[in-house]
Amino acid sequence: MPTVRDASFDLFRAQGMTTMFGNPGSTELPMLAQFPTDLRYVLGLQEAVVVGMADGFAQASGQTSLVNLHTAPGVGNAMGAIFNAQANHSPLLITAGQQARAQITLQANLTNRDATRMPHPLVKWAYEPPRAEDVPLALARGAHLASLPPKGPVFVSLPMDDWYAEVDETDAREAIGRKVTGRAAAEAEAVSRLAERLGAASNPVLVAGPDIDASGAWAVAIALAERQRLPVWASPATGGFRLGFPEDHPNFRGVLPPAIGPLSQTLEGHDLILVAGSSIFPYYPHIPGPLLPEGARLVAITSDPDEAARAPMGDALVADVKLTLEALLEALPQSSRPAPEPNEGPQEIPAADPLNPSTVFSALAEVFPEDGIVVLESPSSTLALRNQLRLSRPGSYYFSAGGGLGFGLAASVGVQLAQPARPVVCVLGEGSAQYAITAFWSAVAYRVPVTFLVLRNAEYAILKWFAEMEQVEGAPGLDLPDLDVAAVAEGYGVSAQRVAGREEVRDALARALASSAPELVEIPVAPGMALF
Amino acid sequence: MPTVRDASFDLFRAQGMTTMFGNPGSTELPMLAQFPTDLRYVLGLQEAVVVGMADGFAQASGQTSLVNLHTAPGVGNAMGAIFNAQANHSPLLITAGQQARAQITLQANLTNRDATRMPHPLVKWAYEPPRAEDVPLALARGAHLASLPPKGPVFVSLPMDDWYAEVDETDAREAIGRKVTGRAAAEAEAVSRLAERLGAASNPVLVAGPDIDASGAWAVAIALAERQRLPVWASPATGGFRLGFPEDHPNFRGVLPPAIGPLSQTLEGHDLILVAGSSIFPYYPHIPGPLLPEGARLVAITSDPDEAARAPMGDALVADVKLTLEALLEALPQSSRPAPEPNEGPQEIPAADPLNPSTVFSALAEVFPEDGIVVLESPSSTLALRNQLRLSRPGSYYFSAGGGLGFGLAASVGVQLAQPARPVVCVLGEGSAQYAITAFWSAVAYRVPVTFLVLRNAEYAILKWFAEMEQVEGAPGLDLPDLDVAAVAEGYGVSAQRVAGREEVRDALARALASSAPELVEIPVAPGMALF
Repeated sequence: MPTVRDASFDLFRAQGMTTMFGNPGSTELPMLAQFPTDLRYVLGLQEAVVVGMADGFAQASGQTSLVNLHTAPGVGNAMGAIFNAQANHSPLLITAGQQARAQITLQANLTNRDATRMPHPLVKWAYEPPRAEDVPLALARGAHLASLPPKGPVFVSLPMDDWYAEVDETDAREAIGRKVTGRAAAEAEAVSRLAERLGAASNPVLVAGPDIDASGAWAVAIALAERQRLPVWASPATGGFRLGFPEDHPNFRGVLPPAIGPLSQTLEGHDLILVAGSSIFPYYPHIPGPLLPEGARLVAITSDPDEAARAPMGDALVADVKLTLEALLEALPQSSRPAPEPNEGPQEIPAADPLNPSTVFSALAEVFPEDGIVVLESPSSTLALRNQLRLSRPGSYYFSAGGGLGFGLAASVGVQLAQPARPVVCVLGEGSAQYAITAFWSAVAYRVPVTFLVLRNAEYAILKWFAEMEQVEGAPGLDLPDLDVAAVAEGYGVSAQRVAGREEVRDALARALASSAPELVEIPVAPGMALF
Repeated sequence: MPTVRDASFDLFRAQGMTTMFGNPGSTELPMLAQFPTDLRYVLGLQEAVVVGMADGFAQASGQTSLVNLHTAPGVGNAMGAIFNAQANHSPLLITAGQQARAQITLQANLTNRDATRMPHPLVKWAYEPPRAEDVPLALARGAHLASLPPKGPVFVSLPMDDWYAEVDETDAREAIGRKVTGRAAAEAEAVSRLAERLGAASNPVLVAGPDIDASGAWAVAIALAERQRLPVWASPATGGFRLGFPEDHPNFRGVLPPAIGPLSQTLEGHDLILVAGSSIFPYYPHIPGPLLPEGARLVAITSDPDEAARAPMGDALVADVKLTLEALLEALPQSSRPAPEPNEGPQEIPAADPLNPSTVFSALAEVFPEDGIVVLESPSSTLALRNQLRLSRPGSYYFSAGGGLGFGLAASVGVQLAQPARPVVCVLGEGSAQYAITAFWSAVAYRVPVTFLVLRNAEYAILKWFAEMEQVEGAPGLDLPDLDVAAVAEGYGVSAQRVAGREEVRDALARALASSAPELVEIPVAPGMALF
């Protein structure tokens, strides 16, 4: 009879989960014993890094990813990253070891006392099988649930003595081989009604959210915008964990502001707002105002029932974004509306000393490869990057929708592992790099050739901006003196350069992009926000 | 009328909480505005570091400590450290910002969606006040609960728009001024019964746990052992987050092994086992056997009802350890039992190349100041350190009872801040240093003169030892090639030396101990466990 181990690893293979991201402890050793040579184990030195790498890998590969953590404290260290993965709709099967069953009730050292409560409320499902022989079915259930819409992390706690137990061969085969799919187009009637509303609207607009890219709806979103002559806004950057529309497209208008008042003001004049694949909306900060402009209605297409339910205005269709946009496209003729005014190109920011982040990004744009990918975690220059780079291919941009720092550095390693043929640039502030700093070691250990672009301004610039807006003065902890990411990265074995002028920046980035090893370019930049 | 801010900061002052450990985000800015000059803010660059520093500070100062985290992702990053704080009975008032009340239900960006569920099951209490004006009372309740036995972390979620609301002046004054104490001796009758049992025992033994030190029972534990001629074992190192007895005392026998079979074997021959201030027991790994030696009974004194309830054998008194030991001492005469055989001194381990950790610690012992403090997180050499150093003063040793890595480096900074006059040595493996590595920056930024002693063996030695014991072969992720902590620490501004021979080690440690800045000494050591 096969063992729990045999059946579980066969399940991983059958479900395409052949990379495991982990940080091991004693409670995980029985699971990791005789680790199969056809699977790959990627070690992270702290659990936030482990989950961040897996999150990037899952999103960039489109595959549910396997994570293995160390009982309660390991799961604890990972919780911020799990929060991000949930916000990113990232499908993760997170496992953690647990004390031997004989020692759980007396709460021996390293017992995960309330294992299934621990990762709440950040996972779709948390479970500890009541018997060893249930482990493979629990893992199968977790893998399927993670991949069903809305995708997200699930958690299974695994007592360390379960791995040698035997399981029924037929039952195991049934569990391993299942295929479960959850993509579904919205009902035809609802699509027809939406098509009618869109066709009849005098000035409709499309708001393109991250799940357009995640669902593979990139091309159909473009076709719809062109056929219906829709101007297109990106959903607010705060929740824009992927791009929903090419930012160099003539119909593209820009990124919506993330606050209630300014957002509805931006959409003034439109009578129908079609939102695809976005929460409605990832507002921040609180600037009151009407939720919608005068006379406007809103309809959203989302695969996330919670996103649909919690929206404070507008109707919603809960269904796969791509399939539903395809059905909508099919139901609509070429519109005779005037085409939207073509969008202006990036604004040129004059070079200064130190450089403005916008100038850094315009230098990056000069050498950025057509198939390049950006992983971004530099809160004060997010808009500048998007304005200057105008990314225009699917799967080219990853950001944390949760707003939790620590995603960027770790996720960039996972994205590069999933997309070895595409150059990855990870843009970080020196502050945001700190939340998952040990990912530098994994990048070096696995020879992952990410280009790390670090903007150094000696402050939490986004917080100073918020403080000004909220009329907060005298808050401590907003300055970051002597925080030398290049030196720390070198300590982890990353080759680092410090450059200052625009041309030097461009040349350093070109060299780093051409390298087959991880490289870091650190650039002193002006303090404050960079919006253009 | 005073505002929520006025009342809350007056509460912090009245309760002696004048140091706040934090990592700020936008949702915390209104709390931090016009930060009072009589309070100190200590910035950590990642939340595991923030809570780890606060944990060390709370334990070493004996004061409930104030923590401020950034809404859901910040709390998430801190969860592993909160797990440790819970295991360490460390009193922390953990606060986190929350979205503005107007934006919670629509779940705007950075909403802590289930704020009170988030830190479960690791805190004694989690709360989000339903109205702004309830904030000061909620904070008061949290501060008191954290400090009541068993001490531990509590959590209060604070919507960011609450700070300017007005509160009733009289109500605020009542809440701010309260004093709540929870120390209580066991009922006299139970103490008499225990004294009788102890007096009548032919070969009793004391197991000294960490809450002896935490409750201030150091002197009374020594007096009891001497008056009753008790041999004394330390509770297993796995749960020994503080020392319960001077390890150079003639009655001291050593540290109990942490597994069921070996532990009861070690206590063979004793008819009464008195356990003070320890869980019973922090077993790891699972080596079955009788819970108690033949003919032995066990009685525990603990301030933790859960510890008392979950023990798989023996009776227990739930009460303050110090007060109860004092009452017990008073009820007992000088015993005529033979004094225990004096304990042998540390074993001399011959120097080798690379050094064994034991040799490193014997060199440390030569220069270790009488009032020195060790913060330890080097799992494979914990026993070697305790054997070689024989720490003999209260408040000299801190370790994570939870077994979660990341405590050591961060906690050492907090311990040193709480005890500026005592030299602190933080002993780390290069692997364990990674879980809170950015604490180096805080040590530099606040000029905290910890001596970091890093043992470098290029592996997770404790896991290789477990793997051998559990007959696990072929597990990935157990090697740590090219992990250069000294270089990373230098990147954060710590002055670092790499030394190899025994005398060099001793001299380097002496120099580091004399420095008024943080210093790091990295030493290559032999792989494997160091037990003596």
